[in-house]
Formats: sequence, structure tokens, C-alpha cells
Amino acid sequence: MVFPLIANMIIAFISYVVTVRVIPKLKEKFIKANLFGIDMSKTTSDKVPESLGVVSGFIFLVTMVLFIPFAFGNNLLDKESFPYDEYVKFILALLSICCMLLLGFADDVLDVPWRQKLLLPTIASLPLLMVYYVSFNITTVIVPKPFREWLGLSVDIGIIYYIYMGMLAVFCTNAINILAGVNGLEVGQSVVIAISIAAFNFVELSGPHWKANLFSLYFMLPYTGTSIALLKHNWYPASVFVGDTFCYFSGMTFAVVGILGHFSKTTLLFFIPQIFNFLYSIPQLFKLIPCPRHRLPKFNSRTDKMECSTTTFRYTDLNILGKVIINLFKTFKLIRWEEKSNTIVTNNFTLINLVLLYFGPMHEAKLTTVLLVIQVLGTILAFLIRYPFASVFYDVPGYN
Amino acid sequence: MVFPLIANMIIAFISYVVTVRVIPKLKEKFIKANLFGIDMSKTTSDKVPESLGVVSGFIFLVTMVLFIPFAFGNNLLDKESFPYDEYVKFILALLSICCMLLLGFADDVLDVPWRQKLLLPTIASLPLLMVYYVSFNITTVIVPKPFREWLGLSVDIGIIYYIYMGMLAVFCTNAINILAGVNGLEVGQSVVIAISIAAFNFVELSGPHWKANLFSLYFMLPYTGTSIALLKHNWYPASVFVGDTFCYFSGMTFAVVGILGHFSKTTLLFFIPQIFNFLYSIPQLFKLIPCPRHRLPKFNSRTDKMECSTTTFRYTDLNILGKVIINLFKTFKLIRWEEKSNTIVTNNFTLINLVLLYFGPMHEAKLTTVLLVIQVLGTILAFLIRYPFASVFYDVPGYN
Repeated sequence: MVFPLIANMIIAFISYVVTVRVIPKLKEKFIKANLFGIDMSKTTSDKVPESLGVVSGFIFLVTMVLFIPFAFGNNLLDKESFPYDEYVKFILALLSICCMLLLGFADDVLDVPWRQKLLLPTIASLPLLMVYYVSFNITTVIVPKPFREWLGLSVDIGIIYYIYMGMLAVFCTNAINILAGVNGLEVGQSVVIAISIAAFNFVELSGPHWKANLFSLYFMLPYTGTSIALLKHNWYPASVFVGDTFCYFSGMTFAVVGILGHFSKTTLLFFIPQIFNFLYSIPQLFKLIPCPRHRLPKFNSRTDKMECSTTTFRYTDLNILGKVIINLFKTFKLIRWEEKSNTIVTNNFTLINLVLLYFGPMHEAKLTTVLLVIQVLGTILAFLIRYPFASVFYDVPGYN
Repeated sequence: MVFPLIANMIIAFISYVVTVRVIPKLKEKFIKANLFGIDMSKTTSDKVPESLGVVSGFIFLVTMVLFIPFAFGNNLLDKESFPYDEYVKFILALLSICCMLLLGFADDVLDVPWRQKLLLPTIASLPLLMVYYVSFNITTVIVPKPFREWLGLSVDIGIIYYIYMGMLAVFCTNAINILAGVNGLEVGQSVVIAISIAAFNFVELSGPHWKANLFSLYFMLPYTGTSIALLKHNWYPASVFVGDTFCYFSGMTFAVVGILGHFSKTTLLFFIPQIFNFLYSIPQLFKLIPCPRHRLPKFNSRTDKMECSTTTFRYTDLNILGKVIINLFKTFKLIRWEEKSNTIVTNNFTLINLVLLYFGPMHEAKLTTVLLVIQVLGTILAFLIRYPFASVFYDVPGYN
């Protein structure tokens, strides 16, 4: 176990160095290919190359491929004891990630409409579902203690398990994609999540499920290496954008290691800020509250600070559900609300705007930093939930 | 064996139907994304969407993924006899194809320089090499009868076997890519090759290596389905172009089934026209004879026919090797040579130009048809070599 892990660390470091150097060389190529954006939170209007996540993602993929012989050696020596299950999982994970990279890049190039975007992670998770069905097809889940009286120790949820896996992939990819729009945020949060998963895996290496956690660790370290390299170029002031590609393949990577490593519930715990942001966004995503085309914070070029962006509507235009939600949010101080003549002006419902609402306008780099600190706090909370409290629900400490 | 094969045929047919319908819907998206070309052999100058090979390739990939449960069922019933080797091969083949699709599409979008293009199939064949090393690492080859006196029955060629595999992938991808430039030719030749491989696999199903041939067949039928659908849109007058993506992923598909099915030498036999075209092109590819930017045949808008394209140079400017080659080619009537004052005008060294040289100018659709007939003749020659003559070199009729 020690030798492959050290090899993995070395290979992760090399992948970092390679990614840091390759990205600047490809910038011009991306701009030429019409893959660029204008940074709306800057006073300049330079073309910033977009979708560079495909580069870090691809280097990550190649790194993992080159790591195969280190992880599994050469099985000819001992065919009987060769860990076929782990091996299938490994190649399968690579296939899922590669599939998502391809679809993410195609999305960036072809600009798929919003609703069809949800389809892409579903399609990319097909290999996972199919191979899981053929190789494992374990769809029993341990029932939490409080419900055992009715359901027993474990229950076979059959096809629901597959729906859960597919939805996890869709959630992980899109959750990162909607907590975005500030330099360094997409990659920053992904790096925090990856390090959190890696830390969890390290702790669990001494537990009964060490194999599954080692498997995950193998992926998380090179992922972190290549992503930090991307972050270096994407940090304020961003010289490259990461694209949907990055959010997609990152989310898929987390979903895949979570599912194949049998710790998908723990993985979700590291998404607390994303889950909050998603739930908070729902009223606007589902048009219960009017949603402007962009909900990004506003850049104030005079102060060089980011400010809360707003949406304007008439209270009477809301349907009953919208009215209930907005009053609920107001009660819990999740929105600030100003009445101007007979219209209401409120902040857009995103975590980024909420941060700006509470802490006031701030510089873009500081905003990203605050959001990443929240992500780290989320991880600490996740560990608190995972370790001391999990025993309330499950008896085996190492389980999920 | 019969049930999965029938399922495969049905799924191949469905993939054809889906591809035929999806391609026209995506044309506008590709043009908007700046992925288009102008057909130089037409009087109109409409934008023709480029790289649609990524669509047929991706549908092929998804089809193969959905086929996994049909091919392997659910192994929980009988874990001991589950064909793990075949299963690893299957997922590995998908990974290699997906990797090549991603790189091919990136090449189409980013326009990688010619020399770096050779790198792409090498990178995409890394999963194949790595997994082959870990899972099989069989690098012994059967020695042909005439050489057995010196080498014995079989010989372990070690790392050379890996170099051979890598080079096969590079060759297969580029061989299709350089026999191109006429509506329908890239896809047409690939379809002929795929059907040839499938025919060979069918014949061998009754032989001792039926498992490997069934494996290949599983890939060739859906590949043929999706590619014929693409051909329908790419045939004269082409409403879409296929892009490097198509040549890359097709070549990789053939290389992968050839290698993993242990019939790579036979696979190469189906590339006779490509091998000829490649050897014939070498003097220009290596600049021994001056090579214009494009070697495509010329379109004559007055007659609506394609004509042989030419290159002009002075005999005295050639180095000694160039002089030898050009005289050799002249002797074997592989070129036509006209002297104008002190310069030489000769056809460009491609199979397409050679056809136009021998049969005279012809309509583009007819030119493609003639070239595909040559491809079919190549297949017949391949079968003649493979079956009656192979026994001169090998004793086991089913081997390679």
C-alpha cells in the first residue's frame, strides 16, 4: 500500500508541474478557436481564454492512466489473487471521467441550451450504471438505527439505487456549476472538496474499508495537483476561465469515487455550501421569484469591489408559493428587501450574493477567499457530522 | 453467443436510426461554433459543418455502453466463471475510443499543427498499452514457418510488442486521415474496412478463437451502423464534413479490436489501399519531392469533374534520393511527368490522383465510388492472402 501511494504523490506533483506549464502555451489556441470570454468584473475587456478545464482534466486523465502499472503491478505473477474488482472500478472511473470531459468540452464548444445541460451528466454516468450493474449490482443499503424497527437491518432498494447514482452525478456536476462566476471560485471549491475527500480517505485507511479509500485517494491526489495548477491561472485576476468542462469532470470525479468507494453519503457532506446554494437558488431556478439572465454579483468599477446583484418585481405578481417563500426567507434573514413605490428589490438568491449582503461589498479576490473559507468550514462541519454523530444512525463506525 | 449477437445487431440498427436523425439537428450548432468548412469541389460556397464525426462517434460509444449488460449479463449469479479478461478488454476498448474521440475533437476545435497530430493517437493509445501490460503482458509472437529454424516456434519480443501496438494505433488513425478530401471517402473506406473485419470475424466464429472474434464483432456492427448514418450525410453532395475526429476514432477502433482480438496482422491486411497510399505519399510527406499545401484533386467547375492535381519543380533541385524515387515511379508508371521548359510537372503522389491519372477526370461521386471499389478489391485480396496463403507461414489456420 505504501509504495503505490508514494508513487501516486510523486505523479500528482509531476502532473501539477506539467499543467502549470502547459496552460499558458495553449491560451492563444483557445482564443483563436473562439473559446474565450470577457471578464465582466474587470475594467479591461481583454479576451480571456475559456474552457481550460479540458487541459487540466486531460492531464489528470493521462496521469491516472500512467499510474495503472504502479497501482496494479503486473498480474501475470499471481493471476489468482489479482484484484479484478478494483481494477474494473479503476478503468471504469477513467471511462466515466473521460466521457464527461468529452461532453463538457462539447458543451463549451457547441453551447448546449440550459435544459439539455442536465442531460449530459446523465449520459456520462451511463458507463458507471451499466458496469455497476454487471459487476456488482449491490443495491442493499444499511438502514439507519431509528428506522430499523420497521425496515430491518438492511433493505434492497433495487432500481432506486441506480436512480440515486445517476442523480448524484447530475447533482455533483451542476452544484459546482451554479456556485460560480467569480475568479477562482469553481476550481477553489473543487480543490477544497478534493482535499476534504482525501483527508477522509487518509483517516479511513486504517479502517476496515481501506481498499475503497485507497482507491479514492489515488484519484484525489492527482486531481488536486492538476486543479491547483489550473487555480494558479484562474485566480484573480484570471488569465484563463475553466469552462463548464471543469465543473462537469470535477463533479463526475467526486461522484465516481464516492459511488465506487462506497462513501457517497460522506461525499455529499462535503458539498454543504453547494447544497445550501442549490436549495437557496431553487425559488429563482424554478421561476417562483423572477430570475434575471445573470445572477452574478455586480462589479463596481469606481470602488473596484463586487456588490450584491438584485432582482426587481411586484409582490402582487408572485404566486402563492412565491409569496410564502419570500416571507420565509425574510423571516430567516436570508434576503434583504427594499420597497420602491410598488415594486420590491431584493438580492438574487445565491450564496455569493448572501455573502456580499452580510459582509458588504468587497474586492473580488477577497470574495473568493471568503467563499473558500465557508467551504472549509463546511468540511469541518462535515467531519463533525460524519464522526461523532454518525454513530447515532449506524453501528459500524467505518460505514458510509 | 446467439442472444448477445442478435441484441448487438438490433442495437446497431437503432444506433443507425438515431445517428441519421441527430446529425441534421446539430448542423447549425456546429456552424455557430465556428466548426465549418467550405467545400472546395463545389460551385457554391456554403458553410458545411465540420467534425460531425464526433456525433457518430459519441453515439457509437453510448451504444456500446448500453450493450454491456447484454454482452455480460449480471455476474452475481456465477462470479467464478465470469469472463473478467473479456470484460476488462471491453471497458478498456471503450476508454481508448473515448480518449481518441476527445483528442480528435480537441484537434478539430483547436487546430493542432501537423507534426503534433502524430502525438495524439500515441497519447490515446496509452490506456491500451498500460492495461495490456497489467492484464496480459503477452509479448510472444508465433514465428512464421520459414524462420523457425533460427528462431524457434515462438519468440518473446518484449517492449517491441508495445511499440508495435502504439505504432499500429498511429498508423490506423493517420492512414485514413491521409486518404481523404473527396466527399464520402473517409467514412466510405472506414465502413468497407469495418464490414471486412466483421466478415472475417463471422468466418472465425466457428474457429478456436471465436471469443476474440465475437468481441470484435460486438464493436464492428454498431460502428458500421453509426458510420453508415454519417456517410448518408457526408456522401456527395456532402451536407456535413466528418473532421479529423472521425478518422482518429475510427482508426483507433480498428486498432483496438485488432490488438485485443489478437488479429492485428489481419486488420492491417484490410488497409492495403491505405498502406499503398501511405507508401506512395512518403516522397512528398518527407519533402523529397516538393509538396504543395494541399494535394487534393482539382475541381473543374466548367466540366463539374475532378482532375488530377499537380506539383511543379526543377529536376535539378531534387536530391539524389528524390531523383531515384521519381525515376523509379516513372518506370512503374506510378506518375505521369510533363516537362515544361526546364521544370517538371507531375501529379501529386496520392491514390486519388493516381485513379484520376489512369481513368481520367471524373465526377466527384464517381471518384469516391471508384476508390471504394478499390477498397473492396483490397478486402478480397486480403482474404486471398489471409486464407489460402497463410498456411505457408503458420500451421494453425485460425492464428492471426
